[in-house]
Amino acid sequence: MKASQFFVSTLKEAPADAEVTSHKLMTRAGMIKKLGAGIYNYMPMGLRVIRKVENIVREEMNRAGAVELTMPVVQPAELWEESGRFSKMGPELLRLKDRHDRDFVMQPTSEEAITDIARQELRSYKQLPKNFYQIQTKFRDERRPRFGIMRGREFTMKDAYSFDRDQAAAKASYDVMRVAYRAIFDRFGLKYRAVAADSGAIGGDLSEEFQVIADTGEDALIYSTGSDYAANIELAEAVALIAARGAAKEALTKTPTPGKSTCADVATLLGLPLDRTVKSLVLATDELDDKGDVKKTTVWLLLLRGDHDMNEVKVGKIAGLKDGFRFATVGEIEDHFGCKPGYLGPIGLKKPVKVVSDRTVANMSDFVVGANELDFHLTGANWGRDFPEPDAVADIRNVVAGDPSPDGQGVLAIDRGIEVGHVFYLGTKYSKSMNATFLDETGKPQPFEMGCYGIGVTRIAAAAIEQNNDARGIIWPVALAPFTVVICPIGYDRNAEVKAAADKLHDELAAVGVDVMLDDRGERPGAMFADWELIGIPVRVVISDRGLKEGQLEVQGRREEKASTVALPDIVADVRARLAA
Amino acid sequence: MKASQFFVSTLKEAPADAEVTSHKLMTRAGMIKKLGAGIYNYMPMGLRVIRKVENIVREEMNRAGAVELTMPVVQPAELWEESGRFSKMGPELLRLKDRHDRDFVMQPTSEEAITDIARQELRSYKQLPKNFYQIQTKFRDERRPRFGIMRGREFTMKDAYSFDRDQAAAKASYDVMRVAYRAIFDRFGLKYRAVAADSGAIGGDLSEEFQVIADTGEDALIYSTGSDYAANIELAEAVALIAARGAAKEALTKTPTPGKSTCADVATLLGLPLDRTVKSLVLATDELDDKGDVKKTTVWLLLLRGDHDMNEVKVGKIAGLKDGFRFATVGEIEDHFGCKPGYLGPIGLKKPVKVVSDRTVANMSDFVVGANELDFHLTGANWGRDFPEPDAVADIRNVVAGDPSPDGQGVLAIDRGIEVGHVFYLGTKYSKSMNATFLDETGKPQPFEMGCYGIGVTRIAAAAIEQNNDARGIIWPVALAPFTVVICPIGYDRNAEVKAAADKLHDELAAVGVDVMLDDRGERPGAMFADWELIGIPVRVVISDRGLKEGQLEVQGRREEKASTVALPDIVADVRARLAA
Repeated sequence: MKASQFFVSTLKEAPADAEVTSHKLMTRAGMIKKLGAGIYNYMPMGLRVIRKVENIVREEMNRAGAVELTMPVVQPAELWEESGRFSKMGPELLRLKDRHDRDFVMQPTSEEAITDIARQELRSYKQLPKNFYQIQTKFRDERRPRFGIMRGREFTMKDAYSFDRDQAAAKASYDVMRVAYRAIFDRFGLKYRAVAADSGAIGGDLSEEFQVIADTGEDALIYSTGSDYAANIELAEAVALIAARGAAKEALTKTPTPGKSTCADVATLLGLPLDRTVKSLVLATDELDDKGDVKKTTVWLLLLRGDHDMNEVKVGKIAGLKDGFRFATVGEIEDHFGCKPGYLGPIGLKKPVKVVSDRTVANMSDFVVGANELDFHLTGANWGRDFPEPDAVADIRNVVAGDPSPDGQGVLAIDRGIEVGHVFYLGTKYSKSMNATFLDETGKPQPFEMGCYGIGVTRIAAAAIEQNNDARGIIWPVALAPFTVVICPIGYDRNAEVKAAADKLHDELAAVGVDVMLDDRGERPGAMFADWELIGIPVRVVISDRGLKEGQLEVQGRREEKASTVALPDIVADVRARLAA
Repeated sequence: MKASQFFVSTLKEAPADAEVTSHKLMTRAGMIKKLGAGIYNYMPMGLRVIRKVENIVREEMNRAGAVELTMPVVQPAELWEESGRFSKMGPELLRLKDRHDRDFVMQPTSEEAITDIARQELRSYKQLPKNFYQIQTKFRDERRPRFGIMRGREFTMKDAYSFDRDQAAAKASYDVMRVAYRAIFDRFGLKYRAVAADSGAIGGDLSEEFQVIADTGEDALIYSTGSDYAANIELAEAVALIAARGAAKEALTKTPTPGKSTCADVATLLGLPLDRTVKSLVLATDELDDKGDVKKTTVWLLLLRGDHDMNEVKVGKIAGLKDGFRFATVGEIEDHFGCKPGYLGPIGLKKPVKVVSDRTVANMSDFVVGANELDFHLTGANWGRDFPEPDAVADIRNVVAGDPSPDGQGVLAIDRGIEVGHVFYLGTKYSKSMNATFLDETGKPQPFEMGCYGIGVTRIAAAAIEQNNDARGIIWPVALAPFTVVICPIGYDRNAEVKAAADKLHDELAAVGVDVMLDDRGERPGAMFADWELIGIPVRVVISDRGLKEGQLEVQGRREEKASTVALPDIVADVRARLAA
C-alpha cells in the first residue's frame, strides 16, 4: 500500500477531552475520530487494526468449532421482556421505538436473540453441543462515556454462546473456550492475565476474565508468585494473616483520641502499628412486607483490620446479606452504638447487632477498637473476654500484595489490567426464562445449559496501546499493527533511484505477504519518521540516496533506539525475521 | 468444512409471510431467520454468502483506490439538522433518544457523517480526489417491510463517497466508480444491467443504477436492441411515434359512448385501434402565499395516447410542474371541463387550462377524445382546427417495448430488474449545506464536489436467488455460493472406505482453496441431496461404495439434470474446471 492511495492523517495535539493515553494516541494517529459522545468513526488506519483483531478472533473461534452468524443490532423488546432484562436493565440499555411505536432495543449483548434461535433450531440432544458467535456492533448507553473507544457507547464485540445438554457438557464447552481465548490472546502479542472472576449465584470455577496488563488499567489482577493462582480482586480469597488467636495480655483501656476518627490517625497517635487496629463498618438490611414497606431492619457490624478494605462482593455472599444490604444511616448507628461514626466498636452496644468478623480480625488479640464514645478508643480489646464471639467469621476484605496465596504456594502480587474478554457459565438462566428446551434421549424437554463468551474487539485496540506506547507514540505488536513495515524513502518525489528502490522493496515485501506501507507523500524525513512512530509501525526501512550508494539501508524496530544497517540484498529477509521474532 | 462442525438447517415449508422466491428459499435453506418485521438473523449458511459479497466489493473498491473506514450506526441528530435531512426525511429515518434525551438517528446512509469527516480532514486541494467507503449496518424504517432481506429494515450496505475539487474531477471519480461497479457485478456472476437513472435537478449523465435482472424484479429496465442505450423507466426517453402530423381528414363528430370511460372501452365500442384514442389526465398546481395558504391554483390537461402511461418523473420536469403537482379534484375538473372524469378532452373547456401534449399525441390527427359531456366522445379531433395547439409538447410517457431507441439505433426492449447498486453525482448539496470546504491553489475555500455510490450487500444475495433458482431451490453462482462443492458420502457413518475417501477428497479440495463442504451428518441420500440442492451448492460429488469399487464417482453441477461419472484420480481437476467455468 502506498500512502497516497491510503489515508494518513496525524495530529500534533490530542483533543482536549482525551484523558487516557490510548484515546490521545489513537486520535493523534488518525485511527479514530469522534462523531459524538462515546461514538467514533474508525478511520482507515484504525479500521485496519480492528480488522486484524477480528480476523484473529474469527480464526480461533472457528478452529474451536464455534459457528459464526450475526444477530440484528436492533432487536424487538418482546424478547427482552421474556428474559426480564427489558425492565431490569438500567438506562445503559438503549430503548427505542419504531414508526409504529413498537419497542426495540439496541443489543448490548445477544443472549435473548441467540436463545430464541436455539429454542427453534436446536431441537434434539443430537444437535448438541453447539456454539454460535457473532462479531457485531453493540451499543451500551454509558452515563459518562470516556476514554475514547475504551468505554465508548457504540463498539464491536465478539459474543459467543454455547448450548449443552447438561452441566458436565457445558463445562466441557466452557473449557474449549478457555483454551481458545488463550490462543487468541497469545496471538495478539499482548501481555495478559486470565483471572478467575466471581460467577455470581452459580458458584463454581466457571467465570474467568481476560485482562490486558497495563499500569493504567482500572482493574486489580491478583496472582500468586508461586503458582498459577490468579483472580480478580472481587474473587481473590484473603486468608487469615494470623494462624491462631493469641491469649489476651493487655487490659481493656479507654484512651482519649480526640478528633482521630480513622484507624491510621489513632495508630499514629497511640504509636501503634496500623495492623493492631480494627475498623468497624455498619451495614443494614431491610425486610419488606407484601406492600414493599420495611417490616424489620437488621444492623450489622463488620470488623476489619485497620489496614484492610471491605470487599462488597464477598460481603454479599454472607448469609443474611445475600439479598442486598446498605450502609446504615447515622441515625441507625447512633441508635445501636450510642455514638457517631468514627469511634465505633463491638463493646458496649445499646442494641443488639449482628457481628461479622474478617478472618484475620477473628484471630487478633489485644487490639484497638472505637469506644462507642465520641473522641475515645479502647486498647487491649479481646474477643470473648470483652465482647462476644462474632456471629460469623468470613473473608470480607480485599487481598493486598504480600498476602499468602490461598492455594498455599507463594504470596499474592497485584497487576493493573483492562478487561477485554470474559468467559462465563450461564447455566439455565436464559433457557428457563425463555422456555428454550431440547428433547433428551427419552423425548423429554430439557432446558439448555448455556455459556457466554465475550471479547471487546474495539477495546482490544485501546488496551494494546495502553500497554505498548512511549513518548513518540504507539508501539503495535506485529499481529495488530495496521501495517507491519513502513518504507520511508528520502526524496521519493525527486530522486529516481530512491523511488525505484522504494517501489521495488514495497513490491518484494508485498509479494511475500508483508503488510507494507510505502510513504510516497514526499514529507520531510523528520515529519515522516514522527508520523510512523506515532502510528506505531513495528519496522521502518529508510531508503536514502547515500544508503543506496553504500549498498545498505537503515532498518529500525519501533522499540529500538538506533537503526541497524542492513545490506541491500538482505533487507527482505531481515524485515521478515524481525516480524517473526 | 464438515457439516457436523457447521450448522445446516433446512425446512420443508416456507414461512407463511414469505411472498417472494428469495425469501422462501433463504428461509427454507437456513440462511436467514426472522427476528422481527424486516429484521433478520443471518444464520451461518447465509452469513457466508454475505461475506463473499462483501469481499468482492471490498477488493474491487480497494483496487479502484477507495479507502475503507466505518461510521457509527447511531449518529447525533445535530449533523442531520445541518444537512436538513433530520426534519425533511420521513419516518423511514429511525430517530431515537439517548439516556440524556439527546436526539440521534440510525444511519440509512452516511452523507452527513462523511461530509463532517471531509470538512475536518481534507483541508487542501492536494488531498483530492479522495473516495471513502464503508460496509456497514444500515436501518431504514420501512412502513411495510417485506420480501425477506430484499426490503428489510436493518441491512448491510456498502456506501462510498467521493470528494473532488471541481465538476470535471468529480466526473472522473464517478467514472472510476462506474468501471469498478462493472468489475464488481461481473465478479458476482449475475446477469445485470447498468441503466441510466434520473439525476434529479442536477442534470447530466451522472446517475446510473445497477440492476440484477430477474422476472420478479420491481423495476423496468429499458435497453436498446441495437445499441448500448439503457435507462430505467423513469428516465428512458420516449420519442414521437409519428414523425409529422398528418392533415385532418375526418370531421369532428360527437359519438355516444355510454358507460365507456376508458380509452380501451371506447376503442372497442367504436371498432378503432387503441392508438387512435387520446386520454386526458388532469393535474393541478398550487401557488402559496407567505402563510402557506393557496393563493392560486392552475389546472393542467395532459394528453397521452390511449395505450400510453404517464411518467410522473418526466412530468415533474416540465416548466410550471417542477415544484410539485397533484391530481386535480373532481370539483376542479367539473369546474374546468363541465364534466366528470372519464369523458374529458381538450375541446369545449369551461375555463382555461394549461395543455401539455405528449410528443406522439402532438403529431396525431383524426383521433378520439372525450367530449367533456357524460357518455360522449368526439372522433376526428384535430389540433388547430378543433382546439388550440398545446402550451407545451414534452416526453411525458413511459416507453413501451418496441419504441424506437432514442439514439436512433434499434428498438427498445424491457427487462425486469432488482436495483442493487447506484452511482450518483451529488454535486455540492451536502458540502454547501454543511459548509465543507477545502482550500484551492489560491487559498480560497471551495465546496467539495461529491459523488455517492451504494451497493446493497444483503440485497445482492436475495437478488441472486430471484435470478437463479428452480423447483429444487437456489442455484448460486460460484462466486457467491456459501460452499462451492459438496461431498455427499453414502454411508459415511458405517462404511470406512467411503469415510476415508470422503475425508481425503475434502482435504484435497480444501488444500487447493476450494470452499468444500463434506456432509458427514449420516442423512439418507435423498434427504441429503435435497438439502444441498435447496441450499444451492454449485457442484456435488457423491461418494458411494459402488463408485469407489468401480473407480469413478458421480459429479453433478447444480444446473445439470444428470450426473457425470468421473474417474477417481480426475475428481479434483474436474471439480476445479467446473468451478472455473
